[in-house]
Amino acid sequence: MAIDNVKALTFDVFGTVVDWRSSLIREGETLGKKKGLSVDWAKFADAWRGLYQPAMDEVRGGRRAWTKLDDLHRESLDKLLTQFAIKGLSEAEIDHFNRAWHRLDPWPDSVPGLTRLKKKFVLATLSNGNVALIVNMAKYGGLPWDAVLGAEVAHHYKPQPETYLTTAALLGLAPGECMMVAAHNGDLAAASAVGLRTAFVPRPAEHGPGQAKDIKPAREWDVVASDFVDLAKRLGC
Amino acid sequence: MAIDNVKALTFDVFGTVVDWRSSLIREGETLGKKKGLSVDWAKFADAWRGLYQPAMDEVRGGRRAWTKLDDLHRESLDKLLTQFAIKGLSEAEIDHFNRAWHRLDPWPDSVPGLTRLKKKFVLATLSNGNVALIVNMAKYGGLPWDAVLGAEVAHHYKPQPETYLTTAALLGLAPGECMMVAAHNGDLAAASAVGLRTAFVPRPAEHGPGQAKDIKPAREWDVVASDFVDLAKRLGC
Repeated sequence: MAIDNVKALTFDVFGTVVDWRSSLIREGETLGKKKGLSVDWAKFADAWRGLYQPAMDEVRGGRRAWTKLDDLHRESLDKLLTQFAIKGLSEAEIDHFNRAWHRLDPWPDSVPGLTRLKKKFVLATLSNGNVALIVNMAKYGGLPWDAVLGAEVAHHYKPQPETYLTTAALLGLAPGECMMVAAHNGDLAAASAVGLRTAFVPRPAEHGPGQAKDIKPAREWDVVASDFVDLAKRLGC
Repeated sequence: MAIDNVKALTFDVFGTVVDWRSSLIREGETLGKKKGLSVDWAKFADAWRGLYQPAMDEVRGGRRAWTKLDDLHRESLDKLLTQFAIKGLSEAEIDHFNRAWHRLDPWPDSVPGLTRLKKKFVLATLSNGNVALIVNMAKYGGLPWDAVLGAEVAHHYKPQPETYLTTAALLGLAPGECMMVAAHNGDLAAASAVGLRTAFVPRPAEHGPGQAKDIKPAREWDVVASDFVDLAKRLGC
């Protein structure tokens, strides 16, 4: 089987490994309680994530020099603070809230699954999150990565092919020796287009109730698993 | 104290974390036994390491485009195979021997010390070894890095300032929030010159019997520790 050659698993992180939406809502509620704010934090979290792709598009399209995700998140946050009429935050409070992205909770199966997978495979992140964000998140949630790679070291945002290819090259591997693990069909399609193997792990609660997208595999990916523990089982760990 | 601001420890690896010399001798002896070679493997190991700085100098000086350490090691190995009149190795055997650098043994205190330090600090490599080399070595020896950074992601070899500064920037930290840990005074001097804090951990057996260099701290570094467990103690872990 082609996947017998796989030596490294490369992971999408936001949504696939961590539950960004519930975590942002929790962080918003904590801030709101402290500052006496009345905000629909679920709406706020969705709006923040909603500005994610447009912000990266500026960089992808070459209209803007490389800018790391922490900085794009901060620009989006500044816009949303105005839009949601949130006032009275100090610079330190805004910065701390922006770093909510460094404190996202893993899905319950993430750490147990990764711990099993780590015995057999190199585990690398292949996220659009910058290195510091992913490193701090790993410390926060106990995620046992072997390497933190992806967009920042490639200076390209997914789904641009350079992001996947640079990560494989830094691991000293051919693309076909890497398997992209993601909850998003689009990420897997882009990884597959440049030769990576693919594992789909749906996260039907990523976007909250009523999620319509990425519930099912859009194609016959190499592996489809119900969660990371199931992925470990399917990969013989 | 200035070191109260330190959030990450950045590690030199060859010599500081792992015992490259004994490990290469062991790998040479294994190869020699298998192929019936009569070689002074200590001399071979020293010669291989001896070609390390001149090879990187070509890149540092801009006479050569960025070339990762695995490739420099291989070129040096090819020269030494001729020089030591070693014949009869297949391409797979030469490649495996070149990757002896991926299979270097940690000093006995490295894993226990790092395990303690990891609870309080971000642990990142800041080595001239390329990412794959350091990642594979970590899997081999159980080294619990949070991030593998250093020369390859900076496209500059130490002691060039970009290597240290790029690593700090990728960690999202100011240079003064990083502490370079090394067994080599020269590495610490270069790190200190661009603002990193410094910890000297001498490894008096690195170069085998009769080592004269780097036995003692050449300056008043922020911390001097006898090994990694002592370093953990001195840093309050």
